[in-house]
Amino acid sequence: MTTESQIIERLRRIATAPEARGLLDDVAVLDGFVITHDSIAEDVHFLHSDPPASVGWKLVAVNLSDLAGKGATPAGAVLSLTIAGDGAWESEFLTGVEHACESYGLPVIGGDTIALPEDAPRVLGLTAIGRAGPRVPDRSGGRPGDALWLVGTVGDAAAGLAQLRGDPRATGPLVDIYRRPIPQLGAGQALAPVAHAMMDVSDGLLLDARRMAQASGCAIAIDVDALPLSSEFTAERGQSRRARLFAATGGDDYALLAALPPELDPSTLSLPRGTRISRVGTLTAGEAALSLTSGGAPVQLPERLGFEHQGHEHRGVSAAPVGDRS
Amino acid sequence: MTTESQIIERLRRIATAPEARGLLDDVAVLDGFVITHDSIAEDVHFLHSDPPASVGWKLVAVNLSDLAGKGATPAGAVLSLTIAGDGAWESEFLTGVEHACESYGLPVIGGDTIALPEDAPRVLGLTAIGRAGPRVPDRSGGRPGDALWLVGTVGDAAAGLAQLRGDPRATGPLVDIYRRPIPQLGAGQALAPVAHAMMDVSDGLLLDARRMAQASGCAIAIDVDALPLSSEFTAERGQSRRARLFAATGGDDYALLAALPPELDPSTLSLPRGTRISRVGTLTAGEAALSLTSGGAPVQLPERLGFEHQGHEHRGVSAAPVGDRS
Repeated sequence: MTTESQIIERLRRIATAPEARGLLDDVAVLDGFVITHDSIAEDVHFLHSDPPASVGWKLVAVNLSDLAGKGATPAGAVLSLTIAGDGAWESEFLTGVEHACESYGLPVIGGDTIALPEDAPRVLGLTAIGRAGPRVPDRSGGRPGDALWLVGTVGDAAAGLAQLRGDPRATGPLVDIYRRPIPQLGAGQALAPVAHAMMDVSDGLLLDARRMAQASGCAIAIDVDALPLSSEFTAERGQSRRARLFAATGGDDYALLAALPPELDPSTLSLPRGTRISRVGTLTAGEAALSLTSGGAPVQLPERLGFEHQGHEHRGVSAAPVGDRS
Repeated sequence: MTTESQIIERLRRIATAPEARGLLDDVAVLDGFVITHDSIAEDVHFLHSDPPASVGWKLVAVNLSDLAGKGATPAGAVLSLTIAGDGAWESEFLTGVEHACESYGLPVIGGDTIALPEDAPRVLGLTAIGRAGPRVPDRSGGRPGDALWLVGTVGDAAAGLAQLRGDPRATGPLVDIYRRPIPQLGAGQALAPVAHAMMDVSDGLLLDARRMAQASGCAIAIDVDALPLSSEFTAERGQSRRARLFAATGGDDYALLAALPPELDPSTLSLPRGTRISRVGTLTAGEAALSLTSGGAPVQLPERLGFEHQGHEHRGVSAAPVGDRS
């Protein structure tokens, strides 16, 4: 067990209030509000060479993705800002924060600014508060027989990050998606009232799906061939089994994963125009585990399902919240 | 203008929602909730040699003091935790967080844990959410004729910090007060419905009083001789003019400052047993500035009124929130 896991276990024992949802559900629910917090650190979740405005955008977007996973409507953001150096980086960072907040109607309502010791890596945090809809689905409500649906595509951000690792000056649509993810707020609001379980996919589809399986006490089988890939992704990486497993484990997707009643056709819901929603699997009775299929035949699970606890592993901007929360 | 001030100005221009209260009022007010966030950094707001449990206690207490200043009741905390090293420090830190949260009925409802690069200073943050009472006083409602009252004492923490600067192993009641401040939650709840203006005193009484004067558009005169000092403080530093000005500018008091109608006798309010509340001054019409008196005669303001923006100056655990907020 890693240090981080031990600390998180400790936090779980502290956070016993029902509002905490056992720290297992991405968010806290307090009266009519849904609350989430993600922090990011320089050299861990983003690099100094990343454009500061994109770091600001992404910090807002990853928090909004947590709200989207619960069907909440953005209500307010509290920013935790550190200042290291002459403030030029922070000013550009704030441009990205402002841009994302304006784009999604999230008012900045408070925060804290502190100076850091010289040469300290920046640590930036955001608490996002959303208004709950009529239902706030957790990740534990999936039932045998449910259909597993994915909103969005997988793999784009991971492919963009791979491009940047090859060349830090790389540009293009995949890099853009990696740097400026789009939270699926409208889709989350449409799905929340009917989803048995829902969460955002941030650490890798397979890892997050396994978390849903474990929380719901169901088996989940995912059809590798059904994974939605963008044309930009397939142009770069193709559609091979290997490419599909890369996409399913890459993380940073900010897609939504929902367990829906089998009879429900999501095209009958009022999803935002252009929403891509794909049936990717099924929940069944049995051991709470994840399995993969292709053409009906079993596919071996890759060793790494996603980003378990990012620790010192750099994965670009993205946060590893308490208890696998993100 | 410092870099930090420029960044804070920038944030003020972004945070235009009414809930933000112009980032001038310690807290955001969202429907029935009062929300505040403080972050602290190692080597800036606390030292590696500080006992980790006391750092945890203090992070919770300074946030609760912000809620106390608005008369709110603790409802939930969202913790932003970084891990550097083997986790032993963080585990002790959490003991302090847990102790303070239990002491004041603040459930930990969520948060985020991230790993930091090796040797990076820790940055810890807390978003505290409180339920608003029937009124949430801001700092701008003071009126000419109001009496200025202080709940608690001033100078103890600053005297304790001075002891620690002389000897990092110093112990005693003043060090205890410095390390484990007590948020005045009950007093804040009793005063909020009747206070014209209220705030907590964290950066130094004179500095915070001047902020209230400026926000309220009134002059504030403080009687130096009326400042409440503890017996522990006077045993260490005496009651001279110099000691009193030290106490009034030292910061880290987590007292409450309230502008009350002149006819109101606070002893008629249901303050918690043992609450020390002292009339320390008066609000008058005139230039929105601060002045000091002693025996009716004017006293020159010290050059430094408190901790303006802590920047790289070490002052022990305490946070410099956005826009002078704490």
